[in-house]
Amino acid sequence: MGEDHTKIAQWVEQFRPFAKEGNCASYIPALAQKNPNQLAIAIIGPDGSKMKAGDTTERFTLQSVSKIVTFILACMDKGLSYVLERVDVEPTGDTFNSIVRLESHQPGKPFNPMINAGAITVSSILSGDSPQEKIDNLLHFLENMLGKKVSVNEEVFQSEWQTANRNRALAYYLMASGYLDCPVEEALEVYLKQCAIEIDVSDLAMIGLVIANDGYHPILKTQLFPKQVAKLTKALMVTCGMYNASGKFAAFIGLPAKSGVSGAILAAVPGHASIQSPFPTGCGIGIYGPAIDTIGNSVAGVHLLKHIATEWNMNIF
Amino acid sequence: MGEDHTKIAQWVEQFRPFAKEGNCASYIPALAQKNPNQLAIAIIGPDGSKMKAGDTTERFTLQSVSKIVTFILACMDKGLSYVLERVDVEPTGDTFNSIVRLESHQPGKPFNPMINAGAITVSSILSGDSPQEKIDNLLHFLENMLGKKVSVNEEVFQSEWQTANRNRALAYYLMASGYLDCPVEEALEVYLKQCAIEIDVSDLAMIGLVIANDGYHPILKTQLFPKQVAKLTKALMVTCGMYNASGKFAAFIGLPAKSGVSGAILAAVPGHASIQSPFPTGCGIGIYGPAIDTIGNSVAGVHLLKHIATEWNMNIF
Amino acid sequence: MGEDHTKIAQWVEQFRPFAKEGNCASYIPALAQKNPNQLAIAIIGPDGSKMKAGDTTERFTLQSVSKIVTFILACMDKGLSYVLERVDVEPTGDTFNSIVRLESHQPGKPFNPMINAGAITVSSILSGDSPQEKIDNLLHFLENMLGKKVSVNEEVFQSEWQTANRNRALAYYLMASGYLDCPVEEALEVYLKQCAIEIDVSDLAMIGLVIANDGYHPILKTQLFPKQVAKLTKALMVTCGMYNASGKFAAFIGLPAKSGVSGAILAAVPGHASIQSPFPTGCGIGIYGPAIDTIGNSVAGVHLLKHIATEWNMNIF
Amino acid sequence: MGEDHTKIAQWVEQFRPFAKEGNCASYIPALAQKNPNQLAIAIIGPDGSKMKAGDTTERFTLQSVSKIVTFILACMDKGLSYVLERVDVEPTGDTFNSIVRLESHQPGKPFNPMINAGAITVSSILSGDSPQEKIDNLLHFLENMLGKKVSVNEEVFQSEWQTANRNRALAYYLMASGYLDCPVEEALEVYLKQCAIEIDVSDLAMIGLVIANDGYHPILKTQLFPKQVAKLTKALMVTCGMYNASGKFAAFIGLPAKSGVSGAILAAVPGHASIQSPFPTGCGIGIYGPAIDTIGNSVAGVHLLKHIATEWNMNIF
Repeated sequence: MGEDHTKIAQWVEQFRPFAKEGNCASYIPALAQKNPNQLAIAIIGPDGSKMKAGDTTERFTLQSVSKIVTFILACMDKGLSYVLERVDVEPTGDTFNSIVRLESHQPGKPFNPMINAGAITVSSILSGDSPQEKIDNLLHFLENMLGKKVSVNEEVFQSEWQTANRNRALAYYLMASGYLDCPVEEALEVYLKQCAIEIDVSDLAMIGLVIANDGYHPILKTQLFPKQVAKLTKALMVTCGMYNASGKFAAFIGLPAKSGVSGAILAAVPGHASIQSPFPTGCGIGIYGPAIDTIGNSVAGVHLLKHIATEWNMNIF
Repeated sequence: MGEDHTKIAQWVEQFRPFAKEGNCASYIPALAQKNPNQLAIAIIGPDGSKMKAGDTTERFTLQSVSKIVTFILACMDKGLSYVLERVDVEPTGDTFNSIVRLESHQPGKPFNPMINAGAITVSSILSGDSPQEKIDNLLHFLENMLGKKVSVNEEVFQSEWQTANRNRALAYYLMASGYLDCPVEEALEVYLKQCAIEIDVSDLAMIGLVIANDGYHPILKTQLFPKQVAKLTKALMVTCGMYNASGKFAAFIGLPAKSGVSGAILAAVPGHASIQSPFPTGCGIGIYGPAIDTIGNSVAGVHLLKHIATEWNMNIF
Repeated sequence: MGEDHTKIAQWVEQFRPFAKEGNCASYIPALAQKNPNQLAIAIIGPDGSKMKAGDTTERFTLQSVSKIVTFILACMDKGLSYVLERVDVEPTGDTFNSIVRLESHQPGKPFNPMINAGAITVSSILSGDSPQEKIDNLLHFLENMLGKKVSVNEEVFQSEWQTANRNRALAYYLMASGYLDCPVEEALEVYLKQCAIEIDVSDLAMIGLVIANDGYHPILKTQLFPKQVAKLTKALMVTCGMYNASGKFAAFIGLPAKSGVSGAILAAVPGHASIQSPFPTGCGIGIYGPAIDTIGNSVAGVHLLKHIATEWNMNIF
Repeated sequence: MGEDHTKIAQWVEQFRPFAKEGNCASYIPALAQKNPNQLAIAIIGPDGSKMKAGDTTERFTLQSVSKIVTFILACMDKGLSYVLERVDVEPTGDTFNSIVRLESHQPGKPFNPMINAGAITVSSILSGDSPQEKIDNLLHFLENMLGKKVSVNEEVFQSEWQTANRNRALAYYLMASGYLDCPVEEALEVYLKQCAIEIDVSDLAMIGLVIANDGYHPILKTQLFPKQVAKLTKALMVTCGMYNASGKFAAFIGLPAKSGVSGAILAAVPGHASIQSPFPTGCGIGIYGPAIDTIGNSVAGVHLLKHIATEWNMNIF
């Protein structure tokens, strides 16, 4: 495994230059100021074995990666059927027309929890009588999984809160359509705070590991969430986890993954999909590379992940 | 003219039964409680001559008819070019995609001031440092035109304010896109208060008369707003004044008109388009029939207006 | 009137340079080879009085201007209600979704006769057992109106026929949806031949004059088509005659007009809309300027028409 | 394994009644006349072991299931990159707008090979100088895989050919956009003939087995197509193989599958995704149940497949 570890470090340097093809997300100052050339990876196996390389001490925010965590927690809080009555799981959404034209038509429900509209609905569903309680529950869930304290980066949250008008539009639209379980400002506060939770690549890898293991935490030896929820979450990651490049990611990489505009990528590799790899019983992968492409995915990160998946025969298909 | 007056009264009774094909707008209690069988009309000529028939004492709210008044006032306040930089004047809007899908694309401006998005932008443009000042300016403008006091129906405003989530979504979307000149809640307050201004059919007719006369108030003998603004307003009324039935209204009735979900219809008939009518120098027409069709137009009102336009050879084409 | 005639000639030269802002349509060789700097105008009044200026001997093809002529003829052939069952008259069309996605949904009818889909439906409705008969009927109708022989430019037709795949796609789509009255290839032959009918600005002006006069030919002293059809045609010209700039054209020029990618513009000015002009009883206007903008309208032509309409107070609103 | 076989037979009878919730496809007489209560399944493992139950002798046409076979063949014929230049692999397609409105805009490429537009493009790419040659190559490819003669059901082909106007519209649209490698009628002939290829559930299962085995035919012991193409095909099946229910199918069943309106479903179960099942080294599954839901999938077939996948722990996630 030492040899593989060396390779990982080499690959990080090999793919780091691809960052030049992307840019740090510009709409939030806290993201725009990041060093675009950073690249980091962590991989954790069910036995706790771990590989790390690159800028692994760098901390960053979950952004859209948080959508899978809140989806899982909402399913635990309210049950799968309750959640699926409020958000669909289809990658396409032909029935939605322009809100700008709509004045009287009845819209449908958000088509999956990986787009902002669906994620805001999910945030509104979380247990808790206030935004703070919902976020506390979420942080508690994450802390359980990670075995460490996690918190919201207040500067990032404030920054996103002040530029959240498009998400606010979505939230009011959802409220008007009956797909919000709490007031708009509360749902938005939860949503934007979950996006601003700060972690590192090892944390991402650990979350990925638990999802890969169908909700069973192999180190704590506890079932943290139901197997069915984990399977469904991995399906969502494959069909719509990588924004509008999800199809290409599934076709060429073939792993359940979720990205965020902070440059985060989380992959959940089930054991059966990595039998020939150095992690033959599966693993979680966390990647950070803040220079993203126009679609929203870390450029160097996707290249690195593709290389590893190919070299190590990791693929669920 | 007495004979024509008698005819008008007969026509009101002839078309009143068409109300059965529609329903009062249900989303606002204050509108839902209206008597659907009411039908009223008032017609005023430049010399002050007037015909009235039906339930002419009934008071109702402007709703979308207010959009033409605020558009005119915004053009006077800020100039036509300022307004048209913020709202287009095209009936179609191919460039708008679903807000529910949009997370990163840059949207265009609202495509005309007759749809809610465009109208909210226009409300935000009105002069005044607060919503109350903007509304006061608007009421003052209307009072000048009507020679009487007008006011906002607070019950209707409160009712709409509490169910305004779709409009709030539009407003946040406009804010995110840079098409709002004041904070969202202020723009919405102005927009919903303008919708709740209470008038009667004679008031509608008088507004229509001034627009028909290219902004010149023939009784006050004053130019209230520029001719170019009046012409442009009439063009907007023809291309998009009657919701998604604007094309059919232009094709079969051929008069600049604007409707509202309260059942109001205002028509502006220029003199040159009514030479053979009992109002050979033009007129304003106000109609009220609260039972509206699924598109949003007064059923009996449209039938009545079509009959009059045909019988009296009123048509701008 | 001599003075006005002189002015017209001056205005042509004044607006000719605007052609530089446009380009000749490039997809048909026969159009691409035209001289982009040409500009011509003809205006004809009901008494036969005529003004001409610029490159008035230049011949060009009707292209989309033909859509109003076939619409009128189809209404005469089959009756207005028959035609309107097959094509709507609304400028917007929210109910249409992407053909590329549609595999099983039932589409609606084309939303107006000025877009290609609607125009192809109209061509298929024309009387005649074969494309040739339909075209012969159309040519005969035009020859009656113009008092001269007109014919199809075979080179342009062949050129368009060979690059007609998008129109062919539309036609098969219409056929699949039940909105075509004859086989696809026949409808297309009629449609593309009508587009290739060759005329000059005087011919355009004459057609415009008859439409302006509600179907009455003031020189032949015959009612060529019903008044209601003429009114409806003018309404269509205003709401959707100038492609996606129809709203702006109505707002700033205010005349019923139809343009084609050949650079042709036809305007129909009713007498009541031009009382203060040198043509106080109305007129038809034909303009030719082959350099078109990205929307499809002659750049110099629109500028020239706007100037004349403003100077002469021609406006239907 | 005998016990499992008995279970399969029981499950077929258990889920057969669900056919009542669907209907045979009505647009083709040959499909409409099928017995809606039929249900059949065949499962084949890499060692040739086989389970069958229900109406297994029934023959039916591939319909959309053919799309995966032609995609694979096109990749072999022209190479993956050639194919992917002409068709994307994304489940969503925001950039496509209505063909009915489009007159001058340049459209993008079809967004995946599982929708009709993309499948017609793929058919046009197949090697062969004529439609017959292309189809012969396809039949030959299938015969190799199945070890038996297969042929086109001419009655079904003729029936679809005569009602193919919507597909013809798509094909002309693709031609206009440069995404067709042969004339429209040839591409359509290939596409509609591939849809009309007649097989039975055992044939479907065998195709599924080879895809499950990454292109390696475990009985013939030959690599029929590249592993990368097989992986990509399975990714496409997961993201868009079950029409607009692909997301739900991935979420709740979790197997690469492709359905057709004939009621066919093909599933490819990789060994790693079925370790705990009676087919621990993977299998191909063929199902036939002609009563389809409004989305296009066999009602009883999907229920049966879901039950088996759950009971046997088959799931790629």
